[in-house]
Amino acid sequence: MSDDLTKFITQYADFPKKGVLFRDILPVLQHPDNFLELIKDMSSSKIIKKADAIISIDARGFIFGTAIAMQSLKPMIVARKVNKLPGDLLTRSYDLEYGQNSLSIQKSALKNYQSFVIIDDLLATGGTATCVSSILRSAGKDVTGLSVVIELEELKGRSCLTFPVESQVIL
Amino acid sequence: MSDDLTKFITQYADFPKKGVLFRDILPVLQHPDNFLELIKDMSSSKIIKKADAIISIDARGFIFGTAIAMQSLKPMIVARKVNKLPGDLLTRSYDLEYGQNSLSIQKSALKNYQSFVIIDDLLATGGTATCVSSILRSAGKDVTGLSVVIELEELKGRSCLTFPVESQVIL
Repeated sequence: MSDDLTKFITQYADFPKKGVLFRDILPVLQHPDNFLELIKDMSSSKIIKKADAIISIDARGFIFGTAIAMQSLKPMIVARKVNKLPGDLLTRSYDLEYGQNSLSIQKSALKNYQSFVIIDDLLATGGTATCVSSILRSAGKDVTGLSVVIELEELKGRSCLTFPVESQVIL
Repeated sequence: MSDDLTKFITQYADFPKKGVLFRDILPVLQHPDNFLELIKDMSSSKIIKKADAIISIDARGFIFGTAIAMQSLKPMIVARKVNKLPGDLLTRSYDLEYGQNSLSIQKSALKNYQSFVIIDDLLATGGTATCVSSILRSAGKDVTGLSVVIELEELKGRSCLTFPVESQVIL
């Protein structure tokens, strides 16, 4: 899949801040057959199959997480940025490629599942995935892995993570 | 569908600010068969079928827009909040139920399509949908309609909109 996918990735220099090369995989959504093939590839992985539920990261992760949830008929819950989720939350802060942020998960959303696969569009430093796994583990839950479309190899995110990582294209 | 759906809607008083009753449809994602049925219902509508492409609103709209895009095999593009999209943008501000915001669409994402259906989780005052339709029309594009899961009837969003509206449950 990776050869086909690279042609859908658009690059933007100095976004969202100077010195960052932003990679955008969303143009693949304009090619429904390719998008479906990508989602089928991602959904066929063991880390998806082993998980009780999918956890999608705000906001681009919602796109791929939802599609995988639909393809695999797995339940999906969300990890969201600050002030976006109501109810009783579990929250952790993290550093990302360009700044700091925090993510929250609703306690009520976790309670019916034991194992989760984390879905996002892109793996950079791994800060986001570490944050989500830290929330999950603090609640006594298991992480089967992280599945992303794009992995930025030079940022070495994979080496910081303590669970399996699957990416469809490595840049 | 609407009788079934209401049981998945969780309500939170005073979120995101005092006086607002927040309705959360995301729990339906924890019931894959019901979620799929909802998406099939939404996708069967004329306003989806007539559209060249789907436009999903940041961020909960991404969830339903992606699922409809996958179900209907239509291209999808996104309308995002400020500072989230790179490239040449078309941007408009809007008032929402609790505050003000702006949405942007990439010019490059619009160019291959003439007609769009707008997808979001919820219709409140209609400010978000009006904002997106105003961007689309400023670029000479057509809006086939707005499709949401929940419509808050007392806020009268529907009466402000100049295109067809479809909702799965009216509260």
